[in-house]
Amino acid sequence: MTHPLALGIDIGGTNTSFGIVNRRGEILAKGSMPTTGHATANDYFIALKKAVEPLIDKAGKGNITGIGMGAPNGNFYTGEIVFAPNLPWHGVIPVVNIMTGALGLKTILTNDANAAAIGEMMYGVAKGMKDFILVTLGTGVGSGFVANGQLIYGHDGFAGELGHVIAVRDGRKCGCGRNGCLEAYASATGIVRTAHEWLEQKDDDTILRLNKGMISAKMIHEAAEQGDAFAMALFDYTAKILGQTLADMVAITSPEAIIFFGGLAQAGELLLGSVHKYMEENLLNIYQNKVTLLQSALPDADAAILGASALVW
Amino acid sequence: MTHPLALGIDIGGTNTSFGIVNRRGEILAKGSMPTTGHATANDYFIALKKAVEPLIDKAGKGNITGIGMGAPNGNFYTGEIVFAPNLPWHGVIPVVNIMTGALGLKTILTNDANAAAIGEMMYGVAKGMKDFILVTLGTGVGSGFVANGQLIYGHDGFAGELGHVIAVRDGRKCGCGRNGCLEAYASATGIVRTAHEWLEQKDDDTILRLNKGMISAKMIHEAAEQGDAFAMALFDYTAKILGQTLADMVAITSPEAIIFFGGLAQAGELLLGSVHKYMEENLLNIYQNKVTLLQSALPDADAAILGASALVW
Repeated sequence: MTHPLALGIDIGGTNTSFGIVNRRGEILAKGSMPTTGHATANDYFIALKKAVEPLIDKAGKGNITGIGMGAPNGNFYTGEIVFAPNLPWHGVIPVVNIMTGALGLKTILTNDANAAAIGEMMYGVAKGMKDFILVTLGTGVGSGFVANGQLIYGHDGFAGELGHVIAVRDGRKCGCGRNGCLEAYASATGIVRTAHEWLEQKDDDTILRLNKGMISAKMIHEAAEQGDAFAMALFDYTAKILGQTLADMVAITSPEAIIFFGGLAQAGELLLGSVHKYMEENLLNIYQNKVTLLQSALPDADAAILGASALVW
Repeated sequence: MTHPLALGIDIGGTNTSFGIVNRRGEILAKGSMPTTGHATANDYFIALKKAVEPLIDKAGKGNITGIGMGAPNGNFYTGEIVFAPNLPWHGVIPVVNIMTGALGLKTILTNDANAAAIGEMMYGVAKGMKDFILVTLGTGVGSGFVANGQLIYGHDGFAGELGHVIAVRDGRKCGCGRNGCLEAYASATGIVRTAHEWLEQKDDDTILRLNKGMISAKMIHEAAEQGDAFAMALFDYTAKILGQTLADMVAITSPEAIIFFGGLAQAGELLLGSVHKYMEENLLNIYQNKVTLLQSALPDADAAILGASALVW
C-alpha cells in the first residue's frame, strides 16, 4: 500500500518554508529558504526548485499527489500571485504554471490565510467545524472565511480580505492606498503605528519610550505583560477596533468560532480577552455568547506548511 | 406524469402572500391575507391554514412536494421565527412544527431575504451565478449571501444580517437597540429619518417640507425625480452609506453581483447609480470594476412567493 504525500510550500514575505506531509498532517521532512534576495521572480523559482527537489526525491516522486502552495495574494482560480505588496516581486506571477513546468506535479495555490484556514479545518482547532473565520494577525491582517464547510473564494478567488475592511472611516492611511483599513490598526505593524502616534501626542511614562526608534509588537506585548499601562492601553485600543469589526463579520457569516493566527495573536489572552469583550459589546443580540474565539494550536512554523499541503487533498 | 408543485408562503410585516408554484417558477394560483389583526400567533396560523387549504385542494395535495416559507427572522435550521421585531408576535414561534401539524406537508422555513436570494438564483437575474449578494431595501435592510452556489446560513442559521452591520460608528439609534446600523440609514424608514433630521437642521427649499408630517420613501423618490435638490441629496447621502458598507462586504465574499430588491430599490438608477459610484470609490483595487449592481426583475408581489417555493426543490 502506498501512502499518498503532498508537498506543502508557504511563501512568506521573508521566508519560504516547505515540507513533505502525509494525510494525517505529519511533516516527514521540511526545509526553508529566504524569499528575498533573488534578482527576479524567475531566479526565486529556480532556487525553490533546487531546494525542494531533494525532499521530493527522498519521498519518491511517485508518492507525491501534488503541491499545495500558500502565498500572499495567491489566487485559487488563476494560480497566480497578483500584485502582492508584501512580496519582493510585483505584477502577476503565474505560480502554478511555473511549478507545474519545473516539477511536473499538479500544483494548487491559494492565499496564505486561506491555506491556514484549510490547515485548521483538517488538523487544527477548527476540526469538524463548518462555519468559522480564520484571522491572521501578522505584518498585515489576512482571513479565510469558511461557510458550509467550504472556503469562500468569491467569483474571482479574491474573497476574504478582512484586513481591508474599513475599521475606522477616514482613518489612518493603509498600504493599499485607502484610509482606515483594519490592517492599519490590528496588525503587528498597526499596533506599532499606534504606539508611535501616542508617543508623539501623549506624555505617558512608559518603558517603550526608551526604545522609541525600534518598537516592535513583541516589545509592546512584553511591556504590557510587565504591567506597563501605556502598552496595555495599546492592546486595549487595538482589541476594540478588531472586536468592533469582527462583530460586523459575525452578522454576515455567523461563524461558530473565530481563530487567530500569526505574530500578534501570540499575545494570547492579553489581546483575545479584550477582543472578545469588545466583540460581544458590539454584537446584535441573536449572536451574543455564541461565537468562540480561539488561538491556533498548530506549531507556528508548521501550520503554514500543513495548510498549504492540505490543498492537495 | 405528475408535475411536482410547491406551496410558497411569504410572511411579511403587513401581508402574507402565498401561491402554488411549479418547478419552472410559474405561479398557478395565489392569494394573500393580512399578517396583522390576529389576537395570537395561533389565531394567525389557523387563519393561514384556512386560506391556503382551497389552493392545496385544487392543486391536489398529492402533487405538492412541500411548503417553502420566508419570514423575517425565520431560521432555516430550527424552523422557528425568532424575536422578529417587524412581526406582531414576539418570542419564538415554531413555524415548521405548526405548519407540518396543520397541513401534513414537509415545510422549510428561512428568512425572507434568504428566500429572495434563492428565488433570484432559480428564476431571476442571479440565474447561473454562484457568488452574489441579495439586498432587500424595505422597511428594514435584509440580505442573503450566496457563495459557491450555496446560501450562507452560518452555524446557527442566522447569517446574512447586512442591515445590522455598523455603517456609521456611534450613529443613529437602530430598532435593534444599537447605534449606526445600516438599516437605520439605507432602508425606506432610514431615508425618511434622514429627511426629518435634515428638515430640522437645514433651511432648504424643498417640496417635502409641505408634507412634513407624512413623508414616505416614495414621496422622496418622486420629489427627486422632479429635480428637488433636497430629495436628491437625501438619495446621495443614503447611497454613500450603502456604497461604503457594500465595499466592505465585497472584500469578504467577492461577489459577481449585488442584487437589490424591495421598496427603496424601486428608485432604480436614482439610487443604484450613486451606490455604484460610492462603492467603487471605496473598493480595494483588486475588486474595482468587477461587481455588477442589479435590480431584481421578478414582479414584486410574486418574487417572495417564488423564493419561498424554491426552498422546496
